[in-house]
Amino acid sequence: MRAEIVAVGTELLLGQVIDTNSAMIAAKLTEIGVDCYYQSRVGDNHGRIVSVLRAALARCDAVIVCGGLGPTQDDITREAIAEVMGVDLVLDETVLAKVRSFFDRLGRQMPKNNERQALVPKGATVIEQQRGTAPGLICSLGHKVLYAMPGVPYELEDMLDRAVLPDLLRRSGSSTKIQSLVVRTWGLSESKLAETLAPEIERLDSEEGLTLAFLASGMEGLKVRATAKGQSDAEVNEMLVDERGRLEKILGDYIFGYDSETMESVVGDLLLAKGKTLSVAESLTGGMVSSKIVANPGASAYFRGGVVSYATEVKQTVLGARDLPVISSEMASEMAMGVKRVLQSDLGLSLTGVAGPETQEGNDPGTVWIGIGDGETSYTRLTLFGGDRERIRWYATMTALDLLRLYLKESPRFHA
Amino acid sequence: MRAEIVAVGTELLLGQVIDTNSAMIAAKLTEIGVDCYYQSRVGDNHGRIVSVLRAALARCDAVIVCGGLGPTQDDITREAIAEVMGVDLVLDETVLAKVRSFFDRLGRQMPKNNERQALVPKGATVIEQQRGTAPGLICSLGHKVLYAMPGVPYELEDMLDRAVLPDLLRRSGSSTKIQSLVVRTWGLSESKLAETLAPEIERLDSEEGLTLAFLASGMEGLKVRATAKGQSDAEVNEMLVDERGRLEKILGDYIFGYDSETMESVVGDLLLAKGKTLSVAESLTGGMVSSKIVANPGASAYFRGGVVSYATEVKQTVLGARDLPVISSEMASEMAMGVKRVLQSDLGLSLTGVAGPETQEGNDPGTVWIGIGDGETSYTRLTLFGGDRERIRWYATMTALDLLRLYLKESPRFHA
Repeated sequence: MRAEIVAVGTELLLGQVIDTNSAMIAAKLTEIGVDCYYQSRVGDNHGRIVSVLRAALARCDAVIVCGGLGPTQDDITREAIAEVMGVDLVLDETVLAKVRSFFDRLGRQMPKNNERQALVPKGATVIEQQRGTAPGLICSLGHKVLYAMPGVPYELEDMLDRAVLPDLLRRSGSSTKIQSLVVRTWGLSESKLAETLAPEIERLDSEEGLTLAFLASGMEGLKVRATAKGQSDAEVNEMLVDERGRLEKILGDYIFGYDSETMESVVGDLLLAKGKTLSVAESLTGGMVSSKIVANPGASAYFRGGVVSYATEVKQTVLGARDLPVISSEMASEMAMGVKRVLQSDLGLSLTGVAGPETQEGNDPGTVWIGIGDGETSYTRLTLFGGDRERIRWYATMTALDLLRLYLKESPRFHA
Repeated sequence: MRAEIVAVGTELLLGQVIDTNSAMIAAKLTEIGVDCYYQSRVGDNHGRIVSVLRAALARCDAVIVCGGLGPTQDDITREAIAEVMGVDLVLDETVLAKVRSFFDRLGRQMPKNNERQALVPKGATVIEQQRGTAPGLICSLGHKVLYAMPGVPYELEDMLDRAVLPDLLRRSGSSTKIQSLVVRTWGLSESKLAETLAPEIERLDSEEGLTLAFLASGMEGLKVRATAKGQSDAEVNEMLVDERGRLEKILGDYIFGYDSETMESVVGDLLLAKGKTLSVAESLTGGMVSSKIVANPGASAYFRGGVVSYATEVKQTVLGARDLPVISSEMASEMAMGVKRVLQSDLGLSLTGVAGPETQEGNDPGTVWIGIGDGETSYTRLTLFGGDRERIRWYATMTALDLLRLYLKESPRFHA
């Protein structure tokens, strides 16, 4: 089975919007084993949309179109598809009622323009819209198929998962069930992670139904997605449980979470489970660690607050630290113990270091001391990061939270 | 003049990488008035790259290819271009010396693979690489042209600005000079900004050489780019100075900065100019405001630090606030005055409010009080934001910094 993705919208050609939809669709096609050799983008122009759709249909079995299904005169994907299918557009009363009820719920009159969204190429099947107004379309053309979905990412993703991928699988003659699990890691470089997982990826190559893929993931750590295919939900679920167990054996607590878990939600859950409260003293990160903790709803159950001791005197006057070198193990310790005492929490987490671009006290940018205070005891760790000011601050933030996680889990890696 | 963009790389088709390059190139083509009707993405496959390039060349005057110029066996854009041109690849000694010197500077031996990067289709002109190893290519095909650049965004952007756009302009028979100015705004909705600028955009429609465009800009405020074209640098520079003046008249201090200025750099410059130091007390934003201030290198000259008073008692014990309703003008005032006193700064900035998803003290998520303390005086403002927890916290952060900016500028809008 071979598919192509066509993104429609003049805003893409003007560079006003980055096309993230194609990557999202592509990743999901890869997971279900559908090949994709080309992707195209075209503006809101009838003739050019028609020619791109025809070229794509000539090359592959299934074309996935996103965008151009809105209510305005610029939204002409429906018309272009009708021309490619050689049929007329007809008003679908069920769709119209659905669009109208969307506005009713908002207590608003449906604009006349939105009637256009109820026009459906004759013979096409409607994908019900559950998040907005534009319905999706499944259009059979002989033994080929064309899917159309709105360009709004969260409407698109819903229709893709609910209707398009299952339909693609059905057409490919497969009754396969698919599920995936995202494993989130911190502390391994990209190449080290790849090297560590190489034997498992090789093993899976010779096994039906399970694949591992690395995901683009920015600064929130490296992600690996395990995808299982099988004949029933129970079967794929069991495959993923087994694979999760194997990955835990291989990666240990370099794995910090799964699927939608974040570093801050995982740390929050551990604090809750241990019944411990936390406060944070930050220097170079300037509030980034506190802010990330607060990003987790429910943080008020375990997070007391923090002190951003950016100026050196604040470390002394507010946190009661002694007059020590600022970038030192002792200062990290004094800050962690100080913030714990001043904010009356069980645990204190601290960071002091150099974000750059200048050196400080003879230390290079990226030199960061992290401290944890618990009762009468404090622990400190020196870490060195590369990159610019933003990257150093971000890595320090993630690493401090990860260190606290390892401490709370009583991981051997914390004491190593 | 009509151009097309072709992005090469199997990682794009697998959805592992989002193609931001095409949007960047597209935005710059739009600015210089080159039309782009199609964009394509294709994997690292010789036959398919050749067919995409041929299709693009048949449709337009200039094809811009990015990606596939690296040193590995997967990087086959060079070979595909040579086939499209009907020529051989030849080793370019100048390029080879340049690649070798890149490794010399790092104190490393050049891997044998990197020799491939010195292969150039016969008759092509090399675009010198100034940031990495892969050179770019300018390949004439009759009266058409094909440009190839590496896929690494910052290498690509450099070559695009330095060589490709000027060459495109030359070929289009134009000796036009182009410069642009980005205007950054905060406080106007997208539709309000569009409405406010509509008369100016209409006026410019009838004027040669100056255009305004709205840019995709995420949560850092709305951006407008003014682009001037003319016969000399002096002329376009003057056009932009004039346009900047007109935009300042129209938008007033809804404009917070220009080009690479950020909200935090602008606030920092104002604090420096006034010789005032700042500290911040945060509740719902949890350190985001402090962190944003610290993102500006040199913040230590004016930023003392902050207190994240997330738990209510911290507002009292650390900041010395009275036992008042937490979401109130009085609390914002006490926090601003308290943090100023405790951290010994000239100014205090405070935020207290509801990030959600739950209501607090009967206040809906998005209800936020912002306070500014200066000397014996405090000012507070109530703001209401929509959206989820992250968006509310982010908008509160930007709005608090913007309010401080208006205060420091003594803007009439601050007192309105």
